[in-house]
Amino acid sequence: MLAKRIKASYLIETSFPPDEAAEVMAGEQSCGTFIKTPGESDHLRRNHRATVENIEILETVGRPTLSGARIYKESAVINRARVTLSWPIENIGYNLPNLVSTIAGNLFELAPFSGLRLLDFDIPGDFAEAYPGPAHGIAGTRSLVGVYDRPIIGTIIKPSVGLTPSQTAQQTKRLIEAGLDFIKDDELMGDPPHSPFDERVGKVMEVIDGHAQRTGKKAMYAFNLSGDIDDMLNRHDYLVQMGATCAMVNLNAVGISAVEYFTSYSQLPVHGHRNGWGMLTRCDVLGMDYPAYQKIWRLAGVDHMHTNGIRNKFCESDESVIRSIRSCLAPFADLRSPMPVLSSGQWAGQTVDTFAAIDSTDLMYLCGGGIVGHPAGMEAGVKSIIQGWEAALSGKSLEEYAKDHVELEEALAFFSNKT
Amino acid sequence: MLAKRIKASYLIETSFPPDEAAEVMAGEQSCGTFIKTPGESDHLRRNHRATVENIEILETVGRPTLSGARIYKESAVINRARVTLSWPIENIGYNLPNLVSTIAGNLFELAPFSGLRLLDFDIPGDFAEAYPGPAHGIAGTRSLVGVYDRPIIGTIIKPSVGLTPSQTAQQTKRLIEAGLDFIKDDELMGDPPHSPFDERVGKVMEVIDGHAQRTGKKAMYAFNLSGDIDDMLNRHDYLVQMGATCAMVNLNAVGISAVEYFTSYSQLPVHGHRNGWGMLTRCDVLGMDYPAYQKIWRLAGVDHMHTNGIRNKFCESDESVIRSIRSCLAPFADLRSPMPVLSSGQWAGQTVDTFAAIDSTDLMYLCGGGIVGHPAGMEAGVKSIIQGWEAALSGKSLEEYAKDHVELEEALAFFSNKT
Repeated sequence: MLAKRIKASYLIETSFPPDEAAEVMAGEQSCGTFIKTPGESDHLRRNHRATVENIEILETVGRPTLSGARIYKESAVINRARVTLSWPIENIGYNLPNLVSTIAGNLFELAPFSGLRLLDFDIPGDFAEAYPGPAHGIAGTRSLVGVYDRPIIGTIIKPSVGLTPSQTAQQTKRLIEAGLDFIKDDELMGDPPHSPFDERVGKVMEVIDGHAQRTGKKAMYAFNLSGDIDDMLNRHDYLVQMGATCAMVNLNAVGISAVEYFTSYSQLPVHGHRNGWGMLTRCDVLGMDYPAYQKIWRLAGVDHMHTNGIRNKFCESDESVIRSIRSCLAPFADLRSPMPVLSSGQWAGQTVDTFAAIDSTDLMYLCGGGIVGHPAGMEAGVKSIIQGWEAALSGKSLEEYAKDHVELEEALAFFSNKT
Repeated sequence: MLAKRIKASYLIETSFPPDEAAEVMAGEQSCGTFIKTPGESDHLRRNHRATVENIEILETVGRPTLSGARIYKESAVINRARVTLSWPIENIGYNLPNLVSTIAGNLFELAPFSGLRLLDFDIPGDFAEAYPGPAHGIAGTRSLVGVYDRPIIGTIIKPSVGLTPSQTAQQTKRLIEAGLDFIKDDELMGDPPHSPFDERVGKVMEVIDGHAQRTGKKAMYAFNLSGDIDDMLNRHDYLVQMGATCAMVNLNAVGISAVEYFTSYSQLPVHGHRNGWGMLTRCDVLGMDYPAYQKIWRLAGVDHMHTNGIRNKFCESDESVIRSIRSCLAPFADLRSPMPVLSSGQWAGQTVDTFAAIDSTDLMYLCGGGIVGHPAGMEAGVKSIIQGWEAALSGKSLEEYAKDHVELEEALAFFSNKT
């Protein structure tokens, strides 16, 4: 039993000797204090105290990044270091929220640290017996969409809010007639008075089913059912009844236990939207890296995970985006991979570079302007993106492939100097 | 309908003209884009676009605090400003997770911002019909504990993990015999193999009930039942069956929808632990302020909210702690106030200053070393803290009140030069 351990690695910034600072983390997140308390027997410490597995000094900085930290002494050097801690599974049992409280709880407030960020973690394989992870994942999603040899091409209904159910259905009709595989609600669109969930689902599914009957191709629409748990379950049941094939959840706002409850219940793949993630990650020395974040949600059973795409319109660097996508596709505790969802400023132009970086087409590729803004129309927009991925898979440059593919050629001519 | 609006205020840092940056926020968090998209009619914008209500320039900074932000132009000044946005309730309906996604979602990743922090928000009063807030709050908690005219004095079982149920019960016995009103599990202690939840509850409640039968005083014990939803409900039912009077939840790790579901179900006050909060708040220009945070959890129905205490051992300043406590006690949308829970390094020494700052005894005052470390024993420790609050209420200084109160005198002599 004691051989099974949870491990987590952190970036720390501290004016304390790094080994001493790491022991403060290990104490606070296990037996509770740095100093032995009454009742903290040697036996208890041996069996339950977190262990500092490794410390690697990375660099020094001129002044503390976060305010409020205690300074070791006036002349102390401020180090950044990578620290790995481990805990016996005995401390936690197989309990996802308490795992998160252990590896990402009080320690961010500890006084010696002017920076502390969770980088990654690992768990014993049998954690997956309690948390079996995504039920659908990549293969299940591909099978529902009927797209196997390239990314699933999708978009987001805009404007985010304000459209009536009929207007949303009309827009859906144009988008699927243009050839899109996947459409989603914006994260702001839930069940508001101007677009009640059930009515929106009804109108949209009528369009999707009509198109499927005519063409044999049934697009996937991710309806945002985020809300209170009873509402989420009722909305799910309505989705199933109406033949919908995907449910979207705002992960951070709904939270781990409710998402886990929902994925255990859901017959449909769960599309995880990460809005609010910026809060957890934009400060370089606080919060967490995406590889840790996606593991938490993978344990909670989420089938699709947003990652941003390269050359996006948000603040995230390409390096960070690529690492995020790779982390979703990497093995973890025998759980299925969630399908990474690339979005923000995506068009045909990023296809070859994205493929070069991740060597996979197991992703959703969501475009807005890259489809609706194509000079020859939306259908040409979808084609240009598929052609971009064909170029990537055939090992050709976009320019070369565009010589025989007019929609890609038009996209390159039109979008290249806009991004 | 359209007159009812949600408001939220933010600290922003940007090299863009602040009014332009604020419009980017308003666009992203409502209709979806800064530029008008097809389908975004004037009617839709008029009824659904977020409005910039106010912008107040605060200061300029020499360089961007967070990395990744787009720079307006080489020579641009970087401003910090306070911005207030508002949304029609029509955009969201009465849906707590989608409220959070609207006021604290994607906007943290927007490119123009090298800092963005949610400071506070307000909602239409009828939101409380859907989310009635804490069912027990301060009055319900006082009534269960039987303490009315002073703070509820409590402590936390230590070591945090590793004690068996019998050892936890033994420690509980000593603590309640010393006169404590309230005891809680550590946030790391859930349902591990070495201390199964039901067994711990059984052993602890036997001690608490025995003491109540002998003395008439029933201490409140907050058992940490954080976990998957079915487990949380089962553990709750066991608590009720065993006569326990409080359930503790790790708020950030369990999440909003599950906490809301649980508080709606719970017959017991829900003790909200904020571990992980450091991630959301320690960077001064990212995440959120506690006044906004406690409103989210108040809407979710949490009865007790951790705030830290003054002169604590974490990184938080006294100014921030006081603001947090006040925000819990302040009115909000006709919901009951959660009881603020002060902890970390607390002993008799902070009582008078705390009362001077918040002018209320409606709080839980949790001490560790301040009780078990008292030179004359734990019972004297508890007495010293009660005497500290008596001093505060009588308008006397600690030193003055200590002249006639030996336990307080001993505490002052012993702890004063340790903190």
